[in-house]
Amino acid sequence: MENFADRLIHTIRNKNSCVVVGLDPYFELIPDTVKKRFFVLKKHCFEYAARVILEFNREVLDLIASHTGIVKPQIALYELYGHWGIWAYSETIKYAKQKGFIVIGDVKRGDVPVTAIAYANAHLGEVRIDDTTETSFLTDAVTVNPFLGTDSILPFIRTAREHHKGIFVLVKTSNPLSGEFQDLVCGKRKLYEITAKKTQEWGKELIGEQGYSSVGAVVGATFPEEIVILRKIMPATYFLVPGYGAQGATANDIKNCFNPDGLGAIINASRSILYAYTLPPWKEKYGVHTWKEATQQALLKMNTEIRERVCVP
Amino acid sequence: MENFADRLIHTIRNKNSCVVVGLDPYFELIPDTVKKRFFVLKKHCFEYAARVILEFNREVLDLIASHTGIVKPQIALYELYGHWGIWAYSETIKYAKQKGFIVIGDVKRGDVPVTAIAYANAHLGEVRIDDTTETSFLTDAVTVNPFLGTDSILPFIRTAREHHKGIFVLVKTSNPLSGEFQDLVCGKRKLYEITAKKTQEWGKELIGEQGYSSVGAVVGATFPEEIVILRKIMPATYFLVPGYGAQGATANDIKNCFNPDGLGAIINASRSILYAYTLPPWKEKYGVHTWKEATQQALLKMNTEIRERVCVP
Repeated sequence: MENFADRLIHTIRNKNSCVVVGLDPYFELIPDTVKKRFFVLKKHCFEYAARVILEFNREVLDLIASHTGIVKPQIALYELYGHWGIWAYSETIKYAKQKGFIVIGDVKRGDVPVTAIAYANAHLGEVRIDDTTETSFLTDAVTVNPFLGTDSILPFIRTAREHHKGIFVLVKTSNPLSGEFQDLVCGKRKLYEITAKKTQEWGKELIGEQGYSSVGAVVGATFPEEIVILRKIMPATYFLVPGYGAQGATANDIKNCFNPDGLGAIINASRSILYAYTLPPWKEKYGVHTWKEATQQALLKMNTEIRERVCVP
Repeated sequence: MENFADRLIHTIRNKNSCVVVGLDPYFELIPDTVKKRFFVLKKHCFEYAARVILEFNREVLDLIASHTGIVKPQIALYELYGHWGIWAYSETIKYAKQKGFIVIGDVKRGDVPVTAIAYANAHLGEVRIDDTTETSFLTDAVTVNPFLGTDSILPFIRTAREHHKGIFVLVKTSNPLSGEFQDLVCGKRKLYEITAKKTQEWGKELIGEQGYSSVGAVVGATFPEEIVILRKIMPATYFLVPGYGAQGATANDIKNCFNPDGLGAIINASRSILYAYTLPPWKEKYGVHTWKEATQQALLKMNTEIRERVCVP
């Protein structure tokens, strides 16, 4: 079972969960109980931050492994700490892969073809250095920005095919002003509908045994009406759905992301799971010393809320 | 003189050149004369690659410093080598800043607001770690992707204002299929015209003493007709113009990027300068041992070609 979409579905069934936990390190929210183990490094700021982040991520991965099989590190929050941050990103992915997680790198890369090849090799493929071949990041899939057109996406698709990886194309993003460009009416259709149509076409040659393509789409939970339209345009496309929890979307908002077969979407939450101990309703009951219980409870609640509306087959 | 656009214009006048040399490491094209200094590290692939790249970049920066004051590293080609690659990216920028270059990070980042803040802090601002403040990358400006809308761009603009930095918004990219989305007709205007109008608005509050904004635009040299339209929509916007040389555009194609004042555009070339010794007409005369002469000749020729059409005032 090498096709990315097939592996994804296998993981969802295995864990009975379509939740994607976002590994988004907000340093100020990481419990001091983790930080203090590295206080000796404090004068080496970036190394200190990177080692704290990696340790925190490992604890989170250990904690959530029974309840979901998919994680999504947001690379921006690692890039913030320079090359040490990228080290933490890479080591986090390595640890997650050792534990059997599917790892989606939220990188939103997009560039002209010759540059897109470099991004694709870095995040989905391999790197040639003289007569040696190495791997930079062990991610199973990445998010990509389609603004530059098909020739900027093809290198990712070619690399995904060759290495049994996947991509998720930004179609309708979850931020409040995503409509500014994405909802523009071009001829008879909105831009997000045109992007959706392209995404579906790009994915045709990567459809797995379960009927889904390894070319997926990012569709924000915060736009439930658009979700209905996009589900119809892209029946064989897996949706990566951000916006649940901290960005305000509920289980009701995302139910139409799924096909009648109970498949077709993975739902991301980041801050509302990782830092549950700082947020209602958990912060009333849990504190910094019981952050793990809060995180676990938040994830279990999210799993339950989604299962009430969608049956994973 | 703290405004980014003012600093940029000062540098252009000072060097009498609006050429931006792209620091794009294609490992297989870096001369063996540089590589062999690091052969002892060969089994540590990524460290080896990173140290070779940094050394090559330093030699290039030394070589070009008299003939231009602006460089643009493409981060994808560093990201390819994982955290070691990002180390080389960061050290390259540090060296370029020491030598007085304006450095534009070609990162094409774009994400939802909370994530865009992290990218902006990483590339244009500073990073808070407990009670310390650090800087990740010393770039003066970065390229950004506007596909997610105004709320994804504002964090970059705020950080640019606070730290006297700049951004270049992708408006019309140089790749062959850029028109697929960017040329879509939305109402009465094409998408690139709409993006141009937004870019001009975003830049209004960052206009410097020379009349240009620190919010610039990426406009491909490969689309000379669109350049004429875009110059009219964005009179106070500096254009970062890729596509010269290796991508096929000539000095004639880019002459309309400039305003009548001789300002308003910086012209990028990467492979055609850095690896001139592998390309006609230079490869007939120069070889791997005289790569520096080829690079210098290629840059001088480009400077001359542009000066024949545009007078830097």
